[in-house]
Amino acid sequence: MHSFKELIDLFCERFNQPQFPTAPAGLYEPASYFLGIGGKRIRPAACLMGNELFGDIKEDCWQIATAIELFHNFTLMHDDIMDKAALRRGQTTVHVRNGENTAILSGDVMLVQAYHCLEDISVEYQSWILKLFNQTAREVCEGQQYDMDYEAVKEVSLEDYIQMIKLKTSVLLAASLKMGAIVAGATVHNCDRVYSFGKNLGIAFQLQDDYLDCFGDPEKFGKQVGGDILRNKKTCLLIKAKELAGGPQKQALEDLLAFQPETEAQQEEKVKGVLDIYRKTGVQEVTRALIEQYAQKAMNHLDQVVVVSTRKQPLQQLAEYLLQRDY
Amino acid sequence: MHSFKELIDLFCERFNQPQFPTAPAGLYEPASYFLGIGGKRIRPAACLMGNELFGDIKEDCWQIATAIELFHNFTLMHDDIMDKAALRRGQTTVHVRNGENTAILSGDVMLVQAYHCLEDISVEYQSWILKLFNQTAREVCEGQQYDMDYEAVKEVSLEDYIQMIKLKTSVLLAASLKMGAIVAGATVHNCDRVYSFGKNLGIAFQLQDDYLDCFGDPEKFGKQVGGDILRNKKTCLLIKAKELAGGPQKQALEDLLAFQPETEAQQEEKVKGVLDIYRKTGVQEVTRALIEQYAQKAMNHLDQVVVVSTRKQPLQQLAEYLLQRDY
Repeated sequence: MHSFKELIDLFCERFNQPQFPTAPAGLYEPASYFLGIGGKRIRPAACLMGNELFGDIKEDCWQIATAIELFHNFTLMHDDIMDKAALRRGQTTVHVRNGENTAILSGDVMLVQAYHCLEDISVEYQSWILKLFNQTAREVCEGQQYDMDYEAVKEVSLEDYIQMIKLKTSVLLAASLKMGAIVAGATVHNCDRVYSFGKNLGIAFQLQDDYLDCFGDPEKFGKQVGGDILRNKKTCLLIKAKELAGGPQKQALEDLLAFQPETEAQQEEKVKGVLDIYRKTGVQEVTRALIEQYAQKAMNHLDQVVVVSTRKQPLQQLAEYLLQRDY
Repeated sequence: MHSFKELIDLFCERFNQPQFPTAPAGLYEPASYFLGIGGKRIRPAACLMGNELFGDIKEDCWQIATAIELFHNFTLMHDDIMDKAALRRGQTTVHVRNGENTAILSGDVMLVQAYHCLEDISVEYQSWILKLFNQTAREVCEGQQYDMDYEAVKEVSLEDYIQMIKLKTSVLLAASLKMGAIVAGATVHNCDRVYSFGKNLGIAFQLQDDYLDCFGDPEKFGKQVGGDILRNKKTCLLIKAKELAGGPQKQALEDLLAFQPETEAQQEEKVKGVLDIYRKTGVQEVTRALIEQYAQKAMNHLDQVVVVSTRKQPLQQLAEYLLQRDY
């Protein structure tokens, strides 16, 4: 059995081999470049952990882990176009570096390559894996659509927001864990518990990402604090603040949302003003409680997996890693 | 057994049912709209024909035919973005109607939906079908890349051009026929012959499309004559003309290629000038001979399929339909 970090290293050793043919270079070089930007490779490691929870890592699992990471990168490459993002991990995005057409087509071929990795899965699991992979891929597209839809509407309920982040980010973590469990021959009960663990952990992780964007230590968080606030992003915090703010606070919040800062000083002013309301309305605590609630749900599902406790340790490490309390 | 046209009708009856969920509408409505634009549905019909060549149509084959048509529409939706095409079959394209982000994401989910149709293929064929589907999808992306690459280079060899159209258009026809044959339980020999029939037929069809763009009857062809000429597209005809043109003709051709017409009269002048060179250099006949050569190759492969001759009639109808001699 391996620790979470060991599994990441083992996966990277394999994944850092060339994943694509060389020609046509215009198609495959940008795809290779994008993989080379790196990433935490959490999902493929989670897939391997789902397998090791129940036994030695199967060759099928390595293939699925690769498919998952290729799929994830396909979504990132296309999301970057949609978000007009110029940088990813400090590197130029493909649509800026090679043009939008290339980013569309290289992304497409990356998705096909992901399915290519599922060709040789053992016959006994292939249909099951393909179904879960397709369902997850469809849900991730739906999540991205809801995310874009919610930018254009005035009000989003907390329930809809959590459904959106579930689709956009947590089903892929959940499916990664479950696919590993499936090819390890786990029972349906265990596969489902592992999935629910991943789903709730993913939601907790995303909520925490929203929280840290407001209250995180910028050095540890690695992003500028207040990015979501400046983009008026309807995160859990903003949604709850609108709900909890009384008359004058409500008006102050509306004014801050309408305010479009032009200078850096004005930006700081807006962030400070919104954070102040988040603190006064208790949104800070409400969000922490919500994160805790989903994290607890995740751990409860893990508890219900029928396997000796020592096998669960890497999944506990994963949860700790994803939910490091930097506040 | 059914005729080619009957199979198209039978396929449409099934395919015209809703192919997508309703929500989120922003994702699925544009995908449904795009399918509603219609199309000749040649590839799924070819898939059914590949099956009927060897026996009654299997449920697997209907699923694969649907996957093929969804895949084809995914490529069209993304190609329309890349080509900045405003219309398809006289209807507004998705990126113009709903924006580029929607066209990217709806196209993505259409590809996922294509794979969804392959989930329940019989275990004995699933891996084989998945492999051929992936290989074909990858090749179609490669063909699109080469097509874009060739726009930017000065010279393309006829060999490279034919390789490009093979990847971009004919492998999908070939794979459609072969996948039908596979799930009908055909032998490897027969599956391979059917594939080669489709591949060569597809090349002949594309070369004829290039030919008709220059020498077709505009009413029967359904497109404006000379479109490729006005875009300086490096088709088989232009490549051969550059090769065969003597000194003064060569210079005249270069001048015409450099000439960027602004008025309609200038456009007519350019088309007329280039067609004149195509006639004088014998490119018209050379291209017809080339089409004939690939058509003949296709029929030779069909001859070698080991099955009673009457079963081959629909495939002969397909070849006749695709290579109607409108010149």
